[in-house]
Amino acid sequence: MNQSKLNSPANGRPQTLKGFRDFLPKEMAIRNYVKNTLTEVFENFGFLPLETPALEYSSILKGKYSNETDDKLGYFFKDNGDREIGLRYDLTVPVSKVLAIYANTDKISLPFKRYQIQPVWRAENTQRGRYREFVQCDVDIFGTDSPISDAEIISIIYAGTQKLNFKNAIIKINSRAVLSDILDKSDIKTNQSSILQSLDKIDKIGEYGVKEEFISKGLTEVQINDLFKYIKQAQPDENLQKVLNLLSSFNIPKEAYIFDPTLVRGCDYYTGTIFEVTVNEANGSIGGGGRYDKLIETLGGPQISAVGFAFGFERVVDVIEKLNLLPELNKSKTKILVANFGSETQNESIKLVSQLRELEISSAIYPDSDKLGKQIKYALDLGIKYLAIIGTDEVKNNVITLKDLDKQEQQSLSFEELVKILK
Amino acid sequence: MNQSKLNSPANGRPQTLKGFRDFLPKEMAIRNYVKNTLTEVFENFGFLPLETPALEYSSILKGKYSNETDDKLGYFFKDNGDREIGLRYDLTVPVSKVLAIYANTDKISLPFKRYQIQPVWRAENTQRGRYREFVQCDVDIFGTDSPISDAEIISIIYAGTQKLNFKNAIIKINSRAVLSDILDKSDIKTNQSSILQSLDKIDKIGEYGVKEEFISKGLTEVQINDLFKYIKQAQPDENLQKVLNLLSSFNIPKEAYIFDPTLVRGCDYYTGTIFEVTVNEANGSIGGGGRYDKLIETLGGPQISAVGFAFGFERVVDVIEKLNLLPELNKSKTKILVANFGSETQNESIKLVSQLRELEISSAIYPDSDKLGKQIKYALDLGIKYLAIIGTDEVKNNVITLKDLDKQEQQSLSFEELVKILK
Repeated sequence: MNQSKLNSPANGRPQTLKGFRDFLPKEMAIRNYVKNTLTEVFENFGFLPLETPALEYSSILKGKYSNETDDKLGYFFKDNGDREIGLRYDLTVPVSKVLAIYANTDKISLPFKRYQIQPVWRAENTQRGRYREFVQCDVDIFGTDSPISDAEIISIIYAGTQKLNFKNAIIKINSRAVLSDILDKSDIKTNQSSILQSLDKIDKIGEYGVKEEFISKGLTEVQINDLFKYIKQAQPDENLQKVLNLLSSFNIPKEAYIFDPTLVRGCDYYTGTIFEVTVNEANGSIGGGGRYDKLIETLGGPQISAVGFAFGFERVVDVIEKLNLLPELNKSKTKILVANFGSETQNESIKLVSQLRELEISSAIYPDSDKLGKQIKYALDLGIKYLAIIGTDEVKNNVITLKDLDKQEQQSLSFEELVKILK
Repeated sequence: MNQSKLNSPANGRPQTLKGFRDFLPKEMAIRNYVKNTLTEVFENFGFLPLETPALEYSSILKGKYSNETDDKLGYFFKDNGDREIGLRYDLTVPVSKVLAIYANTDKISLPFKRYQIQPVWRAENTQRGRYREFVQCDVDIFGTDSPISDAEIISIIYAGTQKLNFKNAIIKINSRAVLSDILDKSDIKTNQSSILQSLDKIDKIGEYGVKEEFISKGLTEVQINDLFKYIKQAQPDENLQKVLNLLSSFNIPKEAYIFDPTLVRGCDYYTGTIFEVTVNEANGSIGGGGRYDKLIETLGGPQISAVGFAFGFERVVDVIEKLNLLPELNKSKTKILVANFGSETQNESIKLVSQLRELEISSAIYPDSDKLGKQIKYALDLGIKYLAIIGTDEVKNNVITLKDLDKQEQQSLSFEELVKILK
């Protein structure tokens, strides 16, 4: 480090960028729990891990969502080699790039089932409480248009919500074909994307609000009435019906899902089944997805069918926090703090902590010789249940004093007895 | 997605940026194994998880390493709000920022032990086989200058290398005080940083190469001879000796570490003990660290002592690959593929895969009805050991045919018998 440049930046007050977050241990405990839980579910379903770089050529990223996303939400810049690059803003486009590059090599066997849990970056308006760096958790199946895959994705959504203890999660299911059919029958031929975007808001702004938007977008009274009529009459198309018929074999209870002809999903790249999962406590969706059979071709690759789902990681974390669903054992992984009373007994304390670690009992040692009260407070702050004391008396008698800080009890133990309690 | 912008980018050939990597499942298996193994070790030692944003104000990042790093290696740009920002290029500066912000709040209790495993970005010269996005694994103890903490960091290095089965890892230990003393005695008063950087190359370019560099940097023959003489006579300073005396209590065998007065470590921010770990097969260091008691103050925070270590994740991954140290069970997590022979028996196959998943036996179903040979090849490609077959005969007799693809055997089983084999 260049000492002359060590002057403190930002007028001496270091700051984290707006919309970005430092995750301290208590927040990380929840985040790691969600990540590990979903990873277990994904691997249980035979999905394989994949990661892609934070930076990509802008040409890969741009033009996949909307002009607005590219211009306002993307982090784009030129690197030192004058390349136009940008930070990924979802995981679907990068994985589609991977498929476009590797699908015809021995690196990927189709059907390819991958999961991916990585941050993405969008320059969102932070005033609406949105983050500019947030994690997405994607599962996708590439290389088959079998309805079994659509149903398997619905099954993994169900398994994920159950594993997270989101008892009342509802999976809404629809398809692009159902929406097209409704629009066709209602004689709505132009501006279809925009009309569907308004329809998508029905849960938020109600039928009346949606009607107002339709009027402002130029729909006639007849078209609007027809639209709502055909929504009410809508039935799953043939392919969606096949998917729905498979759900009982996947052992998904009927209460867990619903056919919802008003479900739209934002991205235009969907071509078939679409789905979304809502949890009451999240005030809306905690994830969504669908079938997109043309995106990889669009990126310059071969035609490869795809269906997938993304859990909105931050939403899931919010629900875990709100409903206090973090299991106790995930709160503090450190089982015991070994106290330190200075040079006379310090080596015995170090030996104890080392022996416990060799038995894979997570333990910490207080590095300084300090008042017992301060060391107890430290253990309590960190949520560590047990404190071990080795003072001169303990050394003399070859015992360890164990304090249970929850129960406020203490006892004198041999090493073997201590291990038995901690294991 | 805006359909009009769906034209394929980059002349139809999607590409990953030079120096960046897509990690496919086989590579991810090794990476996840290393990440999970080190995480276990860190948590066993009572370290707590922490993460910081990919992007920081440039003022936080700049001036902490060298001008060259800032100008040539940093990814810096202006965001849409005209803020000067950059991608983190290590984890030490961001965590020091966190300490500078939170050390006096109830979010952090000192001594604070955190681990952090995240990617960093540097615009390295890719011709030397370097990556521009790579992972670092850091452990640091903040808020104490106790030699127990230095020794504990050495203990975690030892535990990490053992857990990874790097049998012959050697931890080199030195201190800034030893180096200062050698320079003082040799009457080298200017250009000290640069002289030390040359000394640091002794393992790579030998004593003769180092001497040449010293001459070109203006040292006299006398200074050079003195320098080597005092290196040979060097002894640990008082504080380092305290650290070394603690290592046997931490149960670290003598063969695992060595006092090396030529060890320098690049960063100027070190103030005390420094260490590095080498593995023969890695052709050099797989990680390094040391004590840095002034960095947080430099960033505008309070004085907080710190000592830590970073495993070079990519180096560790390389050694695992080279020595084939990935444990068998980490190669494929999917235990069984359930074959698919079309509509007549498909629902039974789906029910089987769902029942196995409910028992947390990781399993996949082939989504399409295809030739058995193709489904077997798929299982082999993915390293899945077992294939389950439910055809019309199996349905009739209420059995499952299980093929062991390793042993090329098959048997007819009840569901309970199948579970017993897979558990």
